[in-house]
Amino acid sequence: MRCVFDQRQLAHAPEVELHNGGFVPYAEDGGRVASILDAIGATEPASDHGEDPLLAVHSGEYLDFLKQAYAAWRAAGREGDAMGYAWPVRGRRALDLERIDAKLGRFSFDTATPIAAGTWESAYWSAQTALTALDLVHAGGQAAFALCRPPGHHAGSDYLGGYCHINSAAVAAQAARTAGRSRVAVLDIDYHHGNGTQDIFYDRDDVFFASIHADPRTDYPFFWGHADERGEGDGEGATLNLPLPRGTSLAGYERALETALEAISDFGPDQLVLSYGADTYEGDPISQFRLSTGDFTRIAGRIAELGVPTLIVMEGGYAVDALGANVAAFLSGF
Amino acid sequence: MRCVFDQRQLAHAPEVELHNGGFVPYAEDGGRVASILDAIGATEPASDHGEDPLLAVHSGEYLDFLKQAYAAWRAAGREGDAMGYAWPVRGRRALDLERIDAKLGRFSFDTATPIAAGTWESAYWSAQTALTALDLVHAGGQAAFALCRPPGHHAGSDYLGGYCHINSAAVAAQAARTAGRSRVAVLDIDYHHGNGTQDIFYDRDDVFFASIHADPRTDYPFFWGHADERGEGDGEGATLNLPLPRGTSLAGYERALETALEAISDFGPDQLVLSYGADTYEGDPISQFRLSTGDFTRIAGRIAELGVPTLIVMEGGYAVDALGANVAAFLSGF
Repeated sequence: MRCVFDQRQLAHAPEVELHNGGFVPYAEDGGRVASILDAIGATEPASDHGEDPLLAVHSGEYLDFLKQAYAAWRAAGREGDAMGYAWPVRGRRALDLERIDAKLGRFSFDTATPIAAGTWESAYWSAQTALTALDLVHAGGQAAFALCRPPGHHAGSDYLGGYCHINSAAVAAQAARTAGRSRVAVLDIDYHHGNGTQDIFYDRDDVFFASIHADPRTDYPFFWGHADERGEGDGEGATLNLPLPRGTSLAGYERALETALEAISDFGPDQLVLSYGADTYEGDPISQFRLSTGDFTRIAGRIAELGVPTLIVMEGGYAVDALGANVAAFLSGF
Repeated sequence: MRCVFDQRQLAHAPEVELHNGGFVPYAEDGGRVASILDAIGATEPASDHGEDPLLAVHSGEYLDFLKQAYAAWRAAGREGDAMGYAWPVRGRRALDLERIDAKLGRFSFDTATPIAAGTWESAYWSAQTALTALDLVHAGGQAAFALCRPPGHHAGSDYLGGYCHINSAAVAAQAARTAGRSRVAVLDIDYHHGNGTQDIFYDRDDVFFASIHADPRTDYPFFWGHADERGEGDGEGATLNLPLPRGTSLAGYERALETALEAISDFGPDQLVLSYGADTYEGDPISQFRLSTGDFTRIAGRIAELGVPTLIVMEGGYAVDALGANVAAFLSGF
């Protein structure tokens, strides 16, 4: 399978994140990529598709914030990486505020996703990596792998969070629509719910979003991914959430997968975007499912049976030592 | 003037808050109270009015959370005080979630307001302190001072933030209504906008809320307190926000005060609740107005000219060495 990766995705290097009341080393670090590159072999660089595909799913106001936040943080005399400390609770307006701290609250939803000096560069090239791999699929490949980093599925049209800044899967799904694909399905099999992707397409009937993830009653991102979230307006029924309990192993996972694949098949997509997280692995340090490396091959094979041209976008996975093997096992199933 | 204070308000003692990207010592510490007690002399203890007055302005779900949060945090194996790391951005539902981290996000809006072992006890007695001082006004005093701590005006019906957990001023304003006062005005002269009080009474026409504060475009709490927030529904026009620029000194402050007092006078209250913060002081370490100690006497005198029975509730003020003198100067103006 052809794989795309761009070195500029390593410019993003926050030092710490705030989690459980204290600072801990930033889990989504460059070592993840190194592990995957070791396992999957040769990759192709990303080509530049410009900002238009990003603006098709993110607000310009948000992208401007993302570009300028680190400089504004430093200009305010702050040390370290930029992070918020106050958020607009439910119901507040989307105000256009001046102060960097207000903007950080306005455009984020957690303290786990700092903006560092290289964040914009890496997030931009993460999206370009997905777009380049999509080109490979459109050029006739049945599947291609975008080694995106930072991941994207927690980023909404105007907010960051969950280590995600630009939603590369959503950018690619929209780019497929723009390129003439009529019905696009996004299947998110990261351990965590892909809230950003859901939000972006929540009211649309041309992009189907299905997600298999840890129950948000117990796991991040908490406020999205509950089974009764099914889309709204034109998108009513075009969102499918399949939350699973902690401790889920292959049998339980496969039942949910069959439900998701049947719904996607019924939707009849001509393009599949797969948000793939390897944090469903039994050894993942921040997650609680029990899939083995071999299970990933099996799951991928089942998804491939859909017979829909597939862009695979890398999302999470934090068991760095096993990450490369898990990704390689997954790709081998296609 | 009779003053009420309860020692149990000192049980709340968080160690640190997250601000500007790093942990700093908790600014709203017990030393504030010591400074004020030194300056104002004898106080009376609070009497217990029970939880009903709190439930008149806060949701039961929120009060339950507040009581249980610290124990839940410790039960989850965490160290230090409880604080959130993820928040429901604009538009998410008020979900009933299990995990302490989800609840902390659901019921808060910042990282500056940890819940420590003694938080519930102190917040409860802060509200009782306000209610007891209100009794003194109802018993015939023209004014009484409630030395409340922790402060309250940033706490909404179901959220904490800004060092505030129970909104003592709102509890007292509602208690005045319950006790038969027909029209209650709340005047908030803390440096920071009293967003919780505003939210609690935003759709009501029987409680008028006026606030003079630093422009939220530059100052916390950012997402509330803009001049175009005027109430809604029945409460349309019963909220008055007078944001002022950093650097405001007495002349500019008095112009806003006249506007607020004229609006309150037009409203015709039979009870005034004054949320008094001394953080408008020129030497305050986290604020940027330029009022002097003597200015507080003058401002209080002008408010007293309204001739409305007044409950004075202590809110912020972080220049600890000058805090007692500032509070005493303010009270002397009545």
